[in-house]
Amino acid sequence: MTSISISQTRLHPHREQFPALANKTYFNYGGQGPMPQGAMDAITQTQAHIQHIGPFGNEAYGWIAPQIKATREAIASELHVPTETITFTENVTVGCNIAMWGIEWHAGDNILLSDCEHPGIIATAQEISRRFAVEVTTCPLMATLNEGDPVQVIAQYLRPNTRLVVLSHVFWNTGQVLPLDKIVEICTVNNSLLLIDAAQSVGALPLNLAELGVDFYAFTGHKWLCGPAGVGGLYVRPEVRESLKPTFIGLRGIVVDSQSQPVDWLPDGRRYEVSTLAYPLYVGLREAIAIHQQWGTSQERYEQICHNSDYFWRQLIALPDVRCLKTSPPQSGIVSFQLTKQPQASLKLVQFLESQKILTRTIASPNCIRASVHYFTLESEIDLLVEAIQSFCKIS
Amino acid sequence: MTSISISQTRLHPHREQFPALANKTYFNYGGQGPMPQGAMDAITQTQAHIQHIGPFGNEAYGWIAPQIKATREAIASELHVPTETITFTENVTVGCNIAMWGIEWHAGDNILLSDCEHPGIIATAQEISRRFAVEVTTCPLMATLNEGDPVQVIAQYLRPNTRLVVLSHVFWNTGQVLPLDKIVEICTVNNSLLLIDAAQSVGALPLNLAELGVDFYAFTGHKWLCGPAGVGGLYVRPEVRESLKPTFIGLRGIVVDSQSQPVDWLPDGRRYEVSTLAYPLYVGLREAIAIHQQWGTSQERYEQICHNSDYFWRQLIALPDVRCLKTSPPQSGIVSFQLTKQPQASLKLVQFLESQKILTRTIASPNCIRASVHYFTLESEIDLLVEAIQSFCKIS
Repeated sequence: MTSISISQTRLHPHREQFPALANKTYFNYGGQGPMPQGAMDAITQTQAHIQHIGPFGNEAYGWIAPQIKATREAIASELHVPTETITFTENVTVGCNIAMWGIEWHAGDNILLSDCEHPGIIATAQEISRRFAVEVTTCPLMATLNEGDPVQVIAQYLRPNTRLVVLSHVFWNTGQVLPLDKIVEICTVNNSLLLIDAAQSVGALPLNLAELGVDFYAFTGHKWLCGPAGVGGLYVRPEVRESLKPTFIGLRGIVVDSQSQPVDWLPDGRRYEVSTLAYPLYVGLREAIAIHQQWGTSQERYEQICHNSDYFWRQLIALPDVRCLKTSPPQSGIVSFQLTKQPQASLKLVQFLESQKILTRTIASPNCIRASVHYFTLESEIDLLVEAIQSFCKIS
Repeated sequence: MTSISISQTRLHPHREQFPALANKTYFNYGGQGPMPQGAMDAITQTQAHIQHIGPFGNEAYGWIAPQIKATREAIASELHVPTETITFTENVTVGCNIAMWGIEWHAGDNILLSDCEHPGIIATAQEISRRFAVEVTTCPLMATLNEGDPVQVIAQYLRPNTRLVVLSHVFWNTGQVLPLDKIVEICTVNNSLLLIDAAQSVGALPLNLAELGVDFYAFTGHKWLCGPAGVGGLYVRPEVRESLKPTFIGLRGIVVDSQSQPVDWLPDGRRYEVSTLAYPLYVGLREAIAIHQQWGTSQERYEQICHNSDYFWRQLIALPDVRCLKTSPPQSGIVSFQLTKQPQASLKLVQFLESQKILTRTIASPNCIRASVHYFTLESEIDLLVEAIQSFCKIS
């Protein structure tokens, strides 16, 4: 047996923990990851336990607080950062909003985005622009997928007044991975803060944020980490914490005096949290992270993701009617492609695939079909998807 | 049998739906309501169903969207408002923040709070004050619990530059219910917007917000509605929607064009929503609401709450070492009281009670113990609490 066949065999019992994988062939990890049964059970049990000891009282609070702390530690350990740098948020976009609204904007400041950012982030930048007379500019990184250097393009677009650069670590549309270390360097030289939309990187890429030096890193637990929808977070570099002001504010983030009057922010990432959380979901996310760690380190999982996307990409480029957006093997689990003969049939293909219980999605810009593979995707699943794409191209 | 005895008997099978009530005597409805088993089961089943059909794909989205819509309808029906006025939020405080940050502040504007508002709201007002040179003032309503007229006090504190008044419908510390209809009138005359912190009113008071004319009403599902922690909402009066700008922004709130570029806000309350929600919790909240509605109308539930708090209050005022903050029967389910001989022993009493599985809480300002009763609280539970308070007073 080759090492790959061994790894494929080893995947079967691991995959049995994910009920969503039992009745379909799944390629939407970039949309939402399937939850392990253990994570769902942990949520149900936590909900029941909180009812048993509370739901509201000293015993319940004394039990919930360390649960949330343990989840914060699990996340911090995945990102290689101190626990106190983590803020919990409902999703990636809330994390981006905390960073974007927490800067004290002056008229004439500049926000630099790439042309591959998520519409929610673009809309936030536009509203900040309108309210504070801040200028928003966009640098063309989509065109650097196969040639050119994204770092050079960003460097060209940085201005003396660029207060904030907002980029995705992995582009949600093309799967391109940006070289963050070099981007941090040029932003630092330019005295610009750097916010990273990490929707497609946390749970997929091995990360060491403390070393990387990025200022803000917004992520979610419900995509590549396979946790419940509704739990995400934001990393804020300790050195910029004092200058990033809390915007949405509540009891979870403040220090109160003996008369319940607010007197200060909490000293750590909790200062950006607002109020009551969906506590049981946090236990579920921790369980999901533990299940991945049981399979392998984040480096091992990333290598397997790249092995899988390479396997997929090589088959796709061999198909006559398909063009992969990337001309070299992907560096992430996202593989995006177009139908060359009928470029407008992306949605039809996705629907055709879904009718066969193969789940992918369309992307509007650039117009393409996105299929994402995780470390536990099987080669046989990829074979099935490729065959289905072939039959679609034949019949239509 | 009297009608009250009948109603007490009728409560027993209803209460069996709430597992948290089986092993304790619960008086923390104002902190968090106990969840019905049916609501917890609905969450578990929804989580499993989403895995079965997705979690991400056209079928999953096609199933989730009407679920969220149905919960929005259930909430709107409880508040007597059109469905499109409801924004979902993670909790009450986020709803208050949406209203407070969505106003386009000018230096010199005034925010008027009462002296009974939640610390999270005070902290938000202070940060808005710091950022936009807005002035925050506080009117003394705590002193109107038993005498004087809160409406007159507010009227005295309104200024020509008061852009926003922030008040609780039911004070979380004293349980006082403010006469919102009259407050709306004086705010309208003064051209001030009115934001209501409804943490202690939704699920407890019968409401008709459309008739009341309040501008913003922020609530949660996890207190008096007994839904899961992590789901709340905000009502925005349609007439002020266009002037209340979205602050935290994401894909859930915007219209995008064929290239995924944001072009507008959604026309309804969803414009203030950000991104991925904890979808299964929304089904749980709807189930909790349905269970209350099966027992009685919001008017009937409120009458029963008042019956229970009256029953409790009458026993408390008869105790020699106890002083109820209110000198007349409560108009809400919140009953707050002090120990006259040992006013500093509030926490000791709460701990003594919790050791007997009777859950209450302390309040810092005014220093008191808060016990809240719901429509399904039993007179025998109240008797038990009163006896325990008596024994504490004797032994300490």
